[in-house]
Amino acid sequence: MAQRIHVEQAGDPRVDDFRELSTADRRPDRPGGRGFVIAEGTVVVRRLLASGYPVRSLLGVERRIDELAPDLAGVDVPAYISSAEVMAEIVGFHLNRGVLAVADRAPRPAVADLLRTSNVIAVLEGVGDHENLGALFRNAAALGVGGVVLGPGCSDPLYRRSVRVSMGNVLRVPFAPLEPWPDGLALVKSNGFRVAALTPRADSVRLRDLAAAGGKVALLLGSEGPGLSEEALSAADVAVRIPMADGVDSLNVATAAAVAFYEFAER
Amino acid sequence: MAQRIHVEQAGDPRVDDFRELSTADRRPDRPGGRGFVIAEGTVVVRRLLASGYPVRSLLGVERRIDELAPDLAGVDVPAYISSAEVMAEIVGFHLNRGVLAVADRAPRPAVADLLRTSNVIAVLEGVGDHENLGALFRNAAALGVGGVVLGPGCSDPLYRRSVRVSMGNVLRVPFAPLEPWPDGLALVKSNGFRVAALTPRADSVRLRDLAAAGGKVALLLGSEGPGLSEEALSAADVAVRIPMADGVDSLNVATAAAVAFYEFAER
Repeated sequence: MAQRIHVEQAGDPRVDDFRELSTADRRPDRPGGRGFVIAEGTVVVRRLLASGYPVRSLLGVERRIDELAPDLAGVDVPAYISSAEVMAEIVGFHLNRGVLAVADRAPRPAVADLLRTSNVIAVLEGVGDHENLGALFRNAAALGVGGVVLGPGCSDPLYRRSVRVSMGNVLRVPFAPLEPWPDGLALVKSNGFRVAALTPRADSVRLRDLAAAGGKVALLLGSEGPGLSEEALSAADVAVRIPMADGVDSLNVATAAAVAFYEFAER
Repeated sequence: MAQRIHVEQAGDPRVDDFRELSTADRRPDRPGGRGFVIAEGTVVVRRLLASGYPVRSLLGVERRIDELAPDLAGVDVPAYISSAEVMAEIVGFHLNRGVLAVADRAPRPAVADLLRTSNVIAVLEGVGDHENLGALFRNAAALGVGGVVLGPGCSDPLYRRSVRVSMGNVLRVPFAPLEPWPDGLALVKSNGFRVAALTPRADSVRLRDLAAAGGKVALLLGSEGPGLSEEALSAADVAVRIPMADGVDSLNVATAAAVAFYEFAER
Protein backbone atom coordinates (compact mmCIF):
# COMPACT_ATOMS: atom_id res chain seq x y z
CA MET A 1 0.00 0.00 0.00
CA ALA A 2 1.35 3.39 -1.03
CA GLN A 3 2.11 5.77 1.83
CA ARG A 4 0.04 8.96 1.66
CA ILE A 5 2.19 11.96 2.65
CA HIS A 6 0.93 15.54 2.66
CA VAL A 7 3.32 18.13 1.25
CA GLU A 8 2.64 21.73 2.21
CA GLN A 9 5.81 23.47 1.01
CA ALA A 10 6.94 23.57 -2.61
CA GLY A 11 10.55 23.47 -1.38
CA ASP A 12 10.13 20.07 0.29
CA PRO A 13 13.10 17.97 -0.88
CA ARG A 14 11.03 14.77 -0.89
CA VAL A 15 9.36 15.92 -4.14
CA ASP A 16 12.59 16.84 -5.92
CA ASP A 17 11.91 14.21 -8.60
CA PHE A 18 9.02 16.40 -9.79
CA ARG A 19 10.84 19.72 -9.78
CA GLU A 20 10.80 22.05 -12.82
CA LEU A 21 9.75 19.38 -15.28
CA SER A 22 9.62 21.69 -18.25
CA THR A 23 13.32 22.51 -17.94
CA ALA A 24 15.64 19.97 -16.29
CA ASP A 25 13.79 16.96 -17.56
CA ARG A 26 12.91 18.25 -20.94
CA ARG A 27 15.01 15.65 -22.73
CA PRO A 28 15.71 12.75 -20.41
CA ASP A 29 18.02 11.27 -23.01
CA ARG A 30 20.28 14.32 -23.06
CA PRO A 31 23.16 15.32 -20.76
CA GLY A 32 21.70 16.89 -17.64
CA GLY A 33 18.36 15.16 -18.02
CA ARG A 34 17.56 13.01 -15.03
CA GLY A 35 16.20 10.22 -17.16
CA PHE A 36 13.04 9.57 -15.20
CA VAL A 37 9.91 8.33 -16.87
CA ILE A 38 7.09 10.75 -16.06
CA ALA A 39 3.41 9.87 -16.27
CA GLU A 40 0.70 12.57 -16.19
CA GLY A 41 -2.97 12.02 -15.41
CA THR A 42 -4.77 9.05 -13.89
CA VAL A 43 -4.97 7.00 -17.11
CA VAL A 44 -1.25 7.19 -17.80
CA VAL A 45 -0.23 6.85 -14.13
CA ARG A 46 -2.34 3.69 -13.97
CA ARG A 47 -0.55 2.37 -17.04
CA LEU A 48 2.83 3.18 -15.48
CA LEU A 49 1.87 1.34 -12.30
CA ALA A 50 0.89 -1.69 -14.40
CA SER A 51 4.14 -1.60 -16.40
CA GLY A 52 7.52 -3.04 -15.55
CA TYR A 53 8.97 0.39 -14.81
CA PRO A 54 10.08 0.81 -11.17
CA VAL A 55 7.86 3.61 -9.84
CA ARG A 56 9.62 5.96 -7.39
CA SER A 57 6.72 8.13 -6.19
CA LEU A 58 3.49 9.95 -7.05
CA LEU A 59 2.49 13.57 -6.60
CA GLY A 60 -1.10 14.66 -6.91
CA VAL A 61 -4.08 16.50 -5.55
CA GLU A 62 -6.01 14.43 -3.02
CA ARG A 63 -8.91 13.65 -5.33
CA ARG A 64 -6.65 12.07 -7.94
CA ILE A 65 -4.63 10.09 -5.40
CA ASP A 66 -7.97 8.81 -4.00
CA GLU A 67 -9.05 7.74 -7.50
CA LEU A 68 -5.85 5.72 -7.83
CA ALA A 69 -6.27 3.94 -4.47
CA PRO A 70 -7.13 0.53 -6.02
CA ASP A 71 -4.08 0.73 -8.29
CA LEU A 72 -1.85 1.70 -5.37
CA ALA A 73 -2.98 -1.12 -3.08
CA GLY A 74 -0.05 -3.39 -3.89
CA VAL A 75 2.53 -0.68 -4.47
CA ASP A 76 5.02 0.36 -1.80
CA VAL A 77 5.89 3.93 -2.87
CA PRO A 78 5.18 7.34 -1.39
CA ALA A 79 2.11 9.17 -2.77
CA TYR A 80 2.67 12.87 -2.05
CA ILE A 81 -0.53 14.86 -1.71
CA SER A 82 -0.53 18.57 -2.31
CA SER A 83 -2.70 21.46 -3.47
CA ALA A 84 -2.86 22.35 -7.16
CA GLU A 85 -1.03 25.59 -6.36
CA VAL A 86 1.88 23.95 -4.55
CA MET A 87 2.08 21.32 -7.31
CA ALA A 88 2.31 24.04 -9.95
CA GLU A 89 5.13 25.64 -7.99
CA ILE A 90 7.03 22.36 -7.75
CA VAL A 91 6.52 21.30 -11.36
CA GLY A 92 6.98 24.74 -12.86
CA PHE A 93 3.67 24.94 -14.72
CA HIS A 94 -0.01 24.37 -14.09
CA LEU A 95 -0.96 20.73 -14.45
CA ASN A 96 -4.46 20.10 -15.76
CA ARG A 97 -4.36 16.44 -14.97
CA GLY A 98 -3.77 16.72 -11.22
CA VAL A 99 -1.44 13.77 -10.75
CA LEU A 100 2.06 12.69 -11.76
CA ALA A 101 4.21 9.64 -11.16
CA VAL A 102 7.93 9.16 -11.76
CA ALA A 103 9.71 5.91 -12.44
CA ASP A 104 13.24 4.86 -13.25
CA ARG A 105 13.91 3.67 -16.75
CA ALA A 106 13.75 -0.09 -17.13
CA PRO A 107 16.10 -2.24 -19.22
CA ARG A 108 14.89 -2.39 -22.81
CA PRO A 109 14.12 -5.67 -24.52
CA ALA A 110 16.69 -6.76 -27.08
CA VAL A 111 15.57 -6.34 -30.69
CA ALA A 112 15.81 -10.10 -31.11
CA ASP A 113 13.26 -10.72 -28.30
CA LEU A 114 10.86 -8.23 -29.78
CA LEU A 115 11.14 -9.85 -33.21
CA ARG A 116 10.54 -13.33 -31.83
CA THR A 117 7.18 -12.44 -30.31
CA SER A 118 5.62 -10.33 -33.10
CA ASN A 119 3.97 -10.73 -36.48
CA VAL A 120 3.70 -7.03 -37.30
CA ILE A 121 6.25 -4.45 -36.17
CA ALA A 122 7.02 -0.84 -37.04
CA VAL A 123 10.57 0.23 -37.87
CA LEU A 124 11.10 3.98 -37.70
CA GLU A 125 13.71 6.24 -39.25
CA GLY A 126 13.98 9.93 -38.37
CA VAL A 127 10.76 10.20 -36.39
CA GLY A 128 12.05 12.96 -34.14
CA ASP A 129 8.76 14.68 -33.36
CA HIS A 130 7.68 13.68 -29.84
CA GLU A 131 3.98 13.97 -30.53
CA ASN A 132 4.10 11.96 -33.74
CA LEU A 133 6.13 9.30 -31.96
CA GLY A 134 3.69 9.15 -29.04
CA ALA A 135 0.69 9.00 -31.39
CA LEU A 136 2.34 6.19 -33.32
CA PHE A 137 2.72 4.11 -30.14
CA ARG A 138 -0.92 4.75 -29.26
CA ASN A 139 -1.94 3.51 -32.71
CA ALA A 140 0.39 0.51 -32.44
CA ALA A 141 -1.19 -0.52 -29.14
CA ALA A 142 -4.75 -0.06 -30.42
CA LEU A 143 -4.13 -2.03 -33.58
CA GLY A 144 -2.13 -4.91 -32.15
CA VAL A 145 1.39 -4.12 -33.37
CA GLY A 146 3.95 -6.22 -31.49
CA GLY A 147 6.76 -3.72 -31.15
CA VAL A 148 8.54 -0.67 -32.46
CA VAL A 149 12.14 -0.69 -33.67
CA LEU A 150 13.94 2.65 -33.63
CA GLY A 151 16.41 3.54 -36.35
CA PRO A 152 18.50 6.74 -36.37
CA GLY A 153 16.98 10.17 -35.80
CA CYS A 154 14.10 9.00 -33.62
CA SER A 155 13.40 10.76 -30.36
CA ASP A 156 13.10 8.98 -27.03
CA PRO A 157 9.65 7.41 -26.62
CA LEU A 158 9.99 7.89 -22.87
CA TYR A 159 10.18 11.66 -23.09
CA ARG A 160 7.27 13.14 -21.12
CA ARG A 161 5.34 14.53 -24.07
CA SER A 162 5.54 11.25 -25.99
CA VAL A 163 4.38 9.34 -22.92
CA ARG A 164 1.38 11.67 -22.64
CA VAL A 165 0.39 11.69 -26.33
CA SER A 166 0.74 7.90 -26.44
CA MET A 167 -1.74 7.70 -23.53
CA GLY A 168 0.93 5.67 -21.75
CA ASN A 169 1.23 3.14 -24.55
CA VAL A 170 4.99 3.70 -24.85
CA LEU A 171 5.01 1.87 -21.51
CA ARG A 172 3.48 -1.29 -22.93
CA VAL A 173 4.40 -1.58 -26.59
CA PRO A 174 7.98 -2.88 -26.48
CA PHE A 175 10.61 -0.89 -28.37
CA ALA A 176 14.31 -1.25 -29.05
CA PRO A 177 16.97 0.57 -31.07
CA LEU A 178 18.44 -1.06 -34.17
CA GLU A 179 22.10 -0.65 -35.09
CA PRO A 180 23.90 -0.43 -37.42
CA TRP A 181 21.57 1.34 -39.86
CA PRO A 182 20.25 0.17 -42.24
CA ASP A 183 22.37 -3.02 -42.20
CA GLY A 184 20.72 -4.07 -38.94
CA LEU A 185 17.56 -4.73 -40.97
CA ALA A 186 19.21 -8.03 -41.91
CA LEU A 187 18.37 -9.21 -38.39
CA VAL A 188 14.72 -8.30 -38.94
CA LYS A 189 14.67 -10.21 -42.24
CA SER A 190 16.42 -13.23 -40.77
CA ASN A 191 13.57 -13.44 -38.26
CA GLY A 192 11.14 -14.00 -41.11
CA PHE A 193 9.88 -10.42 -41.58
CA ARG A 194 9.32 -8.87 -44.95
CA VAL A 195 10.57 -5.27 -44.65
CA ALA A 196 7.99 -3.02 -46.35
CA ALA A 197 8.91 0.66 -46.82
CA LEU A 198 5.92 2.99 -46.76
CA THR A 199 6.37 5.63 -49.46
CA PRO A 200 4.10 7.64 -51.75
CA ARG A 201 6.08 6.51 -54.81
CA ALA A 202 3.82 5.40 -57.63
CA ASP A 203 5.91 2.32 -58.46
CA SER A 204 5.15 0.83 -55.03
CA VAL A 205 2.72 -1.96 -54.17
CA ARG A 206 -0.72 -1.06 -52.83
CA LEU A 207 -0.93 -1.62 -49.07
CA ARG A 208 -3.95 -3.90 -49.48
CA ASP A 209 -2.16 -6.12 -51.98
CA LEU A 210 0.83 -6.46 -49.69
CA ALA A 211 -1.38 -7.39 -46.73
CA ALA A 212 -3.17 -9.98 -48.84
CA ALA A 213 0.17 -11.68 -49.52
CA GLY A 214 0.40 -12.66 -45.83
CA GLY A 215 3.46 -13.35 -43.69
CA LYS A 216 5.28 -11.37 -41.01
CA VAL A 217 5.81 -7.75 -41.89
CA ALA A 218 8.07 -4.95 -40.66
CA LEU A 219 6.61 -1.58 -41.71
CA LEU A 220 9.42 0.85 -42.36
CA LEU A 221 8.24 4.44 -41.75
CA GLY A 222 10.08 7.74 -42.18
CA SER A 223 9.35 11.25 -41.02
CA GLU A 224 6.81 13.40 -42.77
CA GLY A 225 9.03 15.92 -44.50
CA PRO A 226 12.04 14.11 -45.94
CA GLY A 227 10.56 10.61 -45.82
CA LEU A 228 12.79 7.54 -45.74
CA SER A 229 16.44 7.82 -46.74
CA GLU A 230 17.58 6.21 -49.98
CA GLU A 231 19.63 3.75 -47.91
CA ALA A 232 16.56 2.64 -45.97
CA LEU A 233 14.44 2.37 -49.13
CA SER A 234 17.14 0.25 -50.78
CA ALA A 235 17.40 -2.04 -47.78
CA ALA A 236 13.65 -2.77 -47.79
CA ASP A 237 12.23 -5.87 -49.49
CA VAL A 238 9.30 -3.99 -51.00
CA ALA A 239 7.94 -0.46 -51.31
CA VAL A 240 4.29 -0.04 -50.32
CA ARG A 241 1.85 2.86 -50.63
CA ILE A 242 -1.46 4.02 -49.24
CA PRO A 243 -3.38 5.15 -52.35
CA MET A 244 -4.07 8.87 -52.04
CA ALA A 245 -5.96 11.59 -53.84
CA ASP A 246 -4.02 13.66 -56.36
CA GLY A 247 -2.20 16.70 -55.14
CA VAL A 248 -2.49 15.96 -51.45
CA ASP A 249 0.54 15.88 -49.19
CA SER A 250 1.22 12.55 -47.59
CA LEU A 251 -0.53 11.70 -44.36
CA ASN A 252 1.05 12.45 -41.00
CA VAL A 253 3.43 9.58 -40.12
CA ALA A 254 1.36 8.37 -37.14
CA THR A 255 -1.80 8.42 -39.26
CA ALA A 256 -0.18 6.57 -42.15
CA ALA A 257 1.09 4.05 -39.61
CA ALA A 258 -2.43 3.62 -38.21
CA VAL A 259 -3.84 2.89 -41.66
CA ALA A 260 -1.10 0.34 -42.33
CA PHE A 261 -1.45 -1.25 -38.87
CA TYR A 262 -5.19 -1.53 -39.44
CA GLU A 263 -4.72 -3.22 -42.80
CA PHE A 264 -2.45 -5.87 -41.27
CA ALA A 265 -4.68 -6.29 -38.22
CA GLU A 266 -7.63 -7.02 -40.54
CA ARG A 267 -5.69 -9.47 -42.65
CA MET B 1 -0.06 40.36 -60.79
CA ALA B 2 0.17 41.03 -57.07
CA GLN B 3 1.62 44.40 -56.11
CA ARG B 4 4.81 44.08 -54.06
CA ILE B 5 4.85 46.70 -51.31
CA HIS B 6 7.61 47.04 -48.74
CA VAL B 7 6.49 47.68 -45.18
CA GLU B 8 9.12 49.09 -42.83
CA GLN B 9 7.00 50.07 -39.81
CA ALA B 10 5.00 47.62 -37.74
CA GLY B 11 2.40 50.34 -37.19
CA ASP B 12 1.62 50.66 -40.92
CA PRO B 13 -2.20 50.59 -41.17
CA ARG B 14 -2.08 48.73 -44.50
CA VAL B 15 -1.19 45.53 -42.65
CA ASP B 16 -3.95 45.83 -40.03
CA ASP B 17 -5.53 42.59 -41.25
CA PHE B 18 -2.49 40.75 -39.84
CA ARG B 19 -2.33 42.51 -36.49
CA GLU B 20 -2.13 40.55 -33.19
CA LEU B 21 -3.36 37.30 -34.67
CA SER B 22 -3.06 35.35 -31.45
CA THR B 23 -5.57 37.59 -29.71
CA ALA B 24 -8.16 39.44 -31.81
CA ASP B 25 -8.54 36.69 -34.35
CA ARG B 26 -8.29 33.78 -31.99
CA ARG B 27 -11.81 32.63 -32.73
CA PRO B 28 -13.07 34.16 -35.96
CA ASP B 29 -16.49 32.74 -35.25
CA ARG B 30 -16.84 34.57 -31.95
CA PRO B 31 -17.92 38.15 -31.21
CA GLY B 32 -14.97 40.45 -31.74
CA GLY B 33 -13.22 38.07 -34.12
CA ARG B 34 -12.70 39.60 -37.52
CA GLY B 35 -13.64 36.45 -39.34
CA PHE B 36 -10.78 36.40 -41.79
CA VAL B 37 -9.37 33.16 -43.10
CA ILE B 38 -5.64 33.11 -42.37
CA ALA B 39 -3.15 30.93 -44.20
CA GLU B 40 0.38 30.39 -42.88
CA GLY B 41 3.36 29.12 -44.88
CA THR B 42 3.85 28.77 -48.62
CA VAL B 43 2.01 25.45 -48.95
CA VAL B 44 -1.15 26.70 -47.27
CA VAL B 45 -0.98 30.18 -48.85
CA ARG B 46 -0.75 28.48 -52.24
CA ARG B 47 -3.82 26.44 -51.40
CA LEU B 48 -5.70 29.57 -50.32
CA LEU B 49 -4.79 31.29 -53.59
CA ALA B 50 -6.14 28.28 -55.49
CA SER B 51 -9.37 28.20 -53.47
CA GLY B 52 -12.56 30.17 -53.95
CA TYR B 53 -11.83 32.39 -50.95
CA PRO B 54 -11.38 36.07 -51.86
CA VAL B 55 -7.79 36.84 -50.84
CA ARG B 56 -7.30 40.34 -49.40
CA SER B 57 -3.50 40.51 -49.07
CA LEU B 58 -0.28 38.71 -48.22
CA LEU B 59 2.45 39.55 -45.74
CA GLY B 60 5.81 37.83 -45.87
CA VAL B 61 9.56 38.02 -45.91
CA GLU B 62 10.92 38.67 -49.38
CA ARG B 63 12.17 35.13 -49.95
CA ARG B 64 8.74 33.63 -49.36
CA ILE B 65 6.93 36.21 -51.51
CA ASP B 66 9.46 35.43 -54.27
CA GLU B 67 8.71 31.73 -53.97
CA LEU B 68 5.02 32.46 -54.45
CA ALA B 69 5.55 34.62 -57.58
CA PRO B 70 4.10 32.01 -60.01
CA ASP B 71 1.01 31.65 -57.82
CA LEU B 72 0.60 35.42 -57.59
CA ALA B 73 0.86 36.06 -61.32
CA GLY B 74 -2.87 36.20 -61.91
CA VAL B 75 -3.85 37.66 -58.55
CA ASP B 76 -4.53 41.35 -58.05
CA VAL B 77 -3.84 41.81 -54.33
CA PRO B 78 -1.11 43.60 -52.37
CA ALA B 79 1.83 41.42 -51.24
CA TYR B 80 3.41 43.24 -48.30
CA ILE B 81 7.08 42.51 -47.84
CA SER B 82 8.71 42.97 -44.48
CA SER B 83 11.52 41.71 -42.27
CA ALA B 84 10.92 38.77 -39.93
CA GLU B 85 11.27 41.17 -36.98
CA VAL B 86 8.66 43.65 -38.21
CA MET B 87 6.34 40.76 -39.11
CA ALA B 88 6.66 39.37 -35.59
CA GLU B 89 5.77 42.79 -34.21
CA ILE B 90 2.69 43.05 -36.44
CA VAL B 91 1.45 39.51 -35.87
CA GLY B 92 2.29 39.38 -32.18
CA PHE B 93 4.50 36.29 -32.25
CA HIS B 94 7.39 34.87 -34.20
CA LEU B 95 6.28 33.18 -37.40
CA ASN B 96 8.40 30.23 -38.48
CA ARG B 97 6.80 30.00 -41.85
CA GLY B 98 7.62 33.49 -43.08
CA VAL B 99 4.42 34.24 -45.00
CA LEU B 100 0.74 34.79 -44.31
CA ALA B 101 -2.31 35.53 -46.42
CA VAL B 102 -5.76 36.70 -45.33
CA ALA B 103 -9.00 36.14 -47.17
CA ASP B 104 -12.63 36.90 -46.53
CA ARG B 105 -14.86 33.98 -45.74
CA ALA B 106 -16.69 32.60 -48.77
CA PRO B 107 -20.31 31.44 -48.86
CA ARG B 108 -20.52 27.81 -47.77
CA PRO B 109 -22.02 25.16 -50.01
CA ALA B 110 -25.45 23.99 -48.94
CA VAL B 111 -25.50 20.55 -47.35
CA ALA B 112 -27.66 19.36 -50.22
CA ASP B 113 -25.00 20.30 -52.81
CA LEU B 114 -22.32 18.53 -50.85
CA LEU B 115 -24.44 15.39 -50.60
CA ARG B 116 -25.20 15.34 -54.29
CA THR B 117 -21.55 15.22 -55.33
CA SER B 118 -20.14 12.71 -52.83
CA ASN B 119 -20.07 8.98 -52.18
CA VAL B 120 -18.32 9.11 -48.83
CA ILE B 121 -18.77 11.96 -46.35
CA ALA B 122 -17.92 12.53 -42.69
CA VAL B 123 -20.55 13.83 -40.28
CA LEU B 124 -19.09 15.21 -37.05
CA GLU B 125 -20.61 15.75 -33.63
CA GLY B 126 -18.75 17.57 -30.85
CA VAL B 127 -15.36 17.75 -32.56
CA GLY B 128 -14.35 20.97 -30.83
CA ASP B 129 -10.59 20.47 -30.82
CA HIS B 130 -9.08 22.63 -33.58
CA GLU B 131 -6.15 20.34 -34.23
CA ASN B 132 -8.25 17.19 -34.44
CA LEU B 133 -10.63 18.97 -36.79
CA GLY B 134 -7.77 20.19 -39.01
CA ALA B 135 -6.16 16.74 -39.05
CA LEU B 136 -9.49 15.19 -40.01
CA PHE B 137 -9.80 17.50 -43.04
CA ARG B 138 -6.25 16.63 -44.08
CA ASN B 139 -7.12 12.94 -43.90
CA ALA B 140 -10.39 13.52 -45.76
CA ALA B 141 -8.54 15.25 -48.61
CA ALA B 142 -5.84 12.57 -48.80
CA LEU B 143 -8.32 9.71 -48.83
CA GLY B 144 -10.88 11.13 -51.23
CA VAL B 145 -13.75 12.03 -48.91
CA GLY B 146 -16.26 14.29 -50.65
CA GLY B 147 -17.22 16.59 -47.80
CA VAL B 148 -17.60 17.14 -44.09
CA VAL B 149 -20.92 17.86 -42.42
CA LEU B 150 -20.75 19.63 -39.06
CA GLY B 151 -23.18 18.79 -36.29
CA PRO B 152 -23.33 20.61 -32.96
CA GLY B 153 -20.24 21.24 -30.84
CA CYS B 154 -17.77 21.37 -33.71
CA SER B 155 -15.31 24.21 -33.92
CA ASP B 156 -14.88 26.38 -36.98
CA PRO B 157 -12.70 24.65 -39.61
CA LEU B 158 -11.56 28.08 -40.78
CA TYR B 159 -9.93 28.97 -37.47
CA ARG B 160 -6.22 29.60 -38.05
CA ARG B 161 -4.91 26.56 -36.20
CA SER B 162 -7.29 24.19 -38.02
CA VAL B 163 -6.29 25.70 -41.36
CA ARG B 164 -2.63 25.09 -40.51
CA VAL B 165 -2.99 21.53 -39.16
CA SER B 166 -5.16 20.62 -42.17
CA MET B 167 -2.31 21.80 -44.45
CA GLY B 168 -4.90 24.06 -46.05
CA ASN B 169 -7.26 21.20 -46.83
CA VAL B 170 -10.16 22.91 -45.01
CA LEU B 171 -10.01 25.24 -48.01
CA ARG B 172 -10.74 22.48 -50.51
CA VAL B 173 -12.80 19.81 -48.81
CA PRO B 174 -16.32 21.29 -48.78
CA PHE B 175 -18.09 21.51 -45.44
CA ALA B 176 -21.49 22.63 -44.23
CA PRO B 177 -23.39 22.70 -40.95
CA LEU B 178 -26.37 20.39 -40.45
CA GLU B 179 -29.44 21.50 -38.52
CA PRO B 180 -31.54 20.50 -36.70
CA TRP B 181 -29.55 17.80 -34.89
CA PRO B 182 -29.84 14.86 -35.24
CA ASP B 183 -33.08 15.10 -37.22
CA GLY B 184 -31.22 16.74 -40.11
CA LEU B 185 -29.64 13.34 -40.77
CA ALA B 186 -32.89 12.51 -42.56
CA LEU B 187 -31.65 14.73 -45.39
CA VAL B 188 -28.42 12.74 -45.57
CA LYS B 189 -30.37 9.47 -45.71
CA SER B 190 -32.79 10.76 -48.32
CA ASN B 191 -29.76 11.43 -50.54
CA GLY B 192 -28.97 7.73 -50.53
CA PHE B 193 -26.37 7.64 -47.75
CA ARG B 194 -26.22 4.95 -45.12
CA VAL B 195 -25.39 6.76 -41.86
CA ALA B 196 -22.75 4.66 -40.05
CA ALA B 197 -21.87 5.67 -36.48
CA LEU B 198 -18.28 4.87 -35.52
CA THR B 199 -18.24 3.52 -31.97
CA PRO B 200 -16.14 1.01 -30.02
CA ARG B 201 -19.30 -0.87 -28.96
CA ALA B 202 -18.92 -4.61 -29.35
CA ASP B 203 -22.38 -5.07 -30.89
CA SER B 204 -21.38 -2.98 -33.90
CA VAL B 205 -20.47 -4.16 -37.40
CA ARG B 206 -16.80 -4.46 -38.35
CA LEU B 207 -15.72 -1.58 -40.56
CA ARG B 208 -14.49 -3.95 -43.26
CA ASP B 209 -17.81 -5.76 -43.42
CA LEU B 210 -19.68 -2.47 -43.75
CA ALA B 211 -17.39 -1.32 -46.57
CA ALA B 212 -17.88 -4.62 -48.37
CA ALA B 213 -21.64 -4.00 -48.39
CA GLY B 214 -21.12 -1.08 -50.81
CA GLY B 215 -23.25 2.02 -51.32
CA LYS B 216 -22.90 5.65 -50.29
CA VAL B 217 -21.84 6.10 -46.70
CA ALA B 218 -21.93 8.96 -44.17
CA LEU B 219 -19.44 8.24 -41.38
CA LEU B 220 -20.74 9.69 -38.13
CA LEU B 221 -17.84 10.55 -35.79
CA GLY B 222 -17.87 11.92 -32.26
CA SER B 223 -15.21 13.45 -30.09
CA GLU B 224 -12.65 11.32 -28.33
CA GLY B 225 -13.79 11.60 -24.74
CA PRO B 226 -17.59 11.39 -24.62
CA GLY B 227 -18.04 9.87 -28.09
CA LEU B 228 -21.31 10.22 -29.95
CA SER B 229 -24.47 11.22 -28.09
CA GLU B 230 -27.22 8.65 -27.62
CA GLU B 231 -29.41 10.76 -29.93
CA ALA B 232 -26.84 10.59 -32.72
CA LEU B 233 -26.27 6.86 -32.22
CA SER B 234 -30.01 6.24 -32.37
CA ALA B 235 -30.38 8.28 -35.54
CA ALA B 236 -27.70 6.26 -37.37
CA ASP B 237 -28.59 3.36 -39.67
CA VAL B 238 -25.79 1.16 -38.37
CA ALA B 239 -23.06 1.17 -35.72
CA VAL B 240 -19.58 0.33 -36.99
CA ARG B 241 -16.28 -0.36 -35.23
CA ILE B 242 -12.58 -0.51 -35.95
CA PRO B 243 -11.49 -3.74 -34.24
CA MET B 244 -9.04 -2.85 -31.49
CA ALA B 245 -6.75 -4.58 -29.02
CA ASP B 246 -8.14 -5.21 -25.54
CA GLY B 247 -7.74 -2.51 -22.96
CA VAL B 248 -6.70 0.25 -25.33
CA ASP B 249 -8.46 3.58 -25.43
CA SER B 250 -10.10 4.38 -28.70
CA LEU B 251 -8.04 6.01 -31.42
CA ASN B 252 -7.88 9.77 -31.78
CA VAL B 253 -10.92 10.93 -33.80
CA ALA B 254 -8.87 12.10 -36.79
CA THR B 255 -6.96 8.80 -36.83
CA ALA B 256 -10.10 6.70 -36.56
CA ALA B 257 -11.54 8.78 -39.38
CA ALA B 258 -8.45 8.13 -41.52
CA VAL B 259 -8.76 4.38 -41.03
CA ALA B 260 -12.44 4.49 -41.99
CA PHE B 261 -11.83 6.80 -44.96
CA TYR B 262 -9.10 4.44 -46.15
CA GLU B 263 -11.38 1.42 -45.91
CA PHE B 264 -14.02 3.11 -48.07
CA ALA B 265 -11.44 4.47 -50.50
CA GLU B 266 -10.14 0.91 -51.04
CA ARG B 267 -13.58 -0.55 -51.49
